[in-house]
Amino acid sequence: MKPLSSLEQLAEALRRLPGVGPKSAQRMAYHMLQHDREGAAMLGRAFNQAVEKIQHCTSCNTFTENPLCETCMDGERDATLLCVVETPSDQLMIEQTLTYKGLYFVLMGRLSPLDGVGPKDIHLEKLVKRASDGVVAEVVLATNFTNEGEATAHYISETMKARGLKVSRLARGVPVGGELEYVDAGTIARAMLDRRAT
Amino acid sequence: MKPLSSLEQLAEALRRLPGVGPKSAQRMAYHMLQHDREGAAMLGRAFNQAVEKIQHCTSCNTFTENPLCETCMDGERDATLLCVVETPSDQLMIEQTLTYKGLYFVLMGRLSPLDGVGPKDIHLEKLVKRASDGVVAEVVLATNFTNEGEATAHYISETMKARGLKVSRLARGVPVGGELEYVDAGTIARAMLDRRAT
Ligand SMILES: [Zn+2]
Ligand SMILES: [Zn+2]
Repeated sequence: MKPLSSLEQLAEALRRLPGVGPKSAQRMAYHMLQHDREGAAMLGRAFNQAVEKIQHCTSCNTFTENPLCETCMDGERDATLLCVVETPSDQLMIEQTLTYKGLYFVLMGRLSPLDGVGPKDIHLEKLVKRASDGVVAEVVLATNFTNEGEATAHYISETMKARGLKVSRLARGVPVGGELEYVDAGTIARAMLDRRAT
Repeated sequence: MKPLSSLEQLAEALRRLPGVGPKSAQRMAYHMLQHDREGAAMLGRAFNQAVEKIQHCTSCNTFTENPLCETCMDGERDATLLCVVETPSDQLMIEQTLTYKGLYFVLMGRLSPLDGVGPKDIHLEKLVKRASDGVVAEVVLATNFTNEGEATAHYISETMKARGLKVSRLARGVPVGGELEYVDAGTIARAMLDRRAT
């Protein structure tokens, strides 16, 4: 077998991207070399730089270029609150609500036994150690409200409670602006059970 | 404005890939850094190497790492035939049929005035020069049978004939194995007009 050409190597490498099959990998390789060499050079540099520089925050586990991320270094944060999210995007969504001023722990995933994702893959030990620093008073679970997110929240909740930590979960209910007619029955049922005095 | 982090730079660069929007660029960046750092390093190398090494064949215009591609260097080829295709993939498809032993010219595109793709973008001058080498006796047009491919074939055909070159086009007709009931009327009409004596 003769060695792969640079073009074939590029197409092969592009298949490592999630959601990119052989056909679109080849289309991407052709496109970049034919129409956007500057972009191709940019991608080469960006991947090399990212691999070299990006690590995980020693405290909250998110992506960062320093041992501690900016959020963890922010002295204005309420260190008694620790919000657990699945991904950096989820953290960003919560930040945008301006309703939370505590710190975070980013799992970088969710429990998914069928896909072979267990407690170790979502850095449970690191989270337990982080939450047991003697300063954290409440762990706020903000994993997604999917089956896997709920299972992850449940697992973390049990683990934390076993260590005497206070745990809370974001409220479920009818979305703001939601018309009951168009909201699914499960959501309405949950909203009914979780109804609050006004 | 503070400079983009390595992660943001990677997501930005990934948006240069065709068909990748901001959401999937971010998802790709997260995925590669979280789950496939080896793949990320591979992509960095592959892009850099491709940009550095891949050029266009001076004769047929396809991608190659040398001044002349392997096909053009193959002395066994019939140099009187020059087949014009849109992309390297199209050339590969024709090669796989084992019905053609001539040489190629790869346009690396098709005429598409609406997208601003004119004769210069498909290297028409290079093709005219190539076909006028005194050896080429027939130009075989194998652009796609789409509107743009047909327009491209027509344009090249006129240009070549004006220079006294013989031009042919792949036959259109009912696909092998095609049942008339399921073939579109336009194809049947064309097959009727192009019918051959048996
Ligand atoms: Zn952090
Ligand atoms: Zn060539």
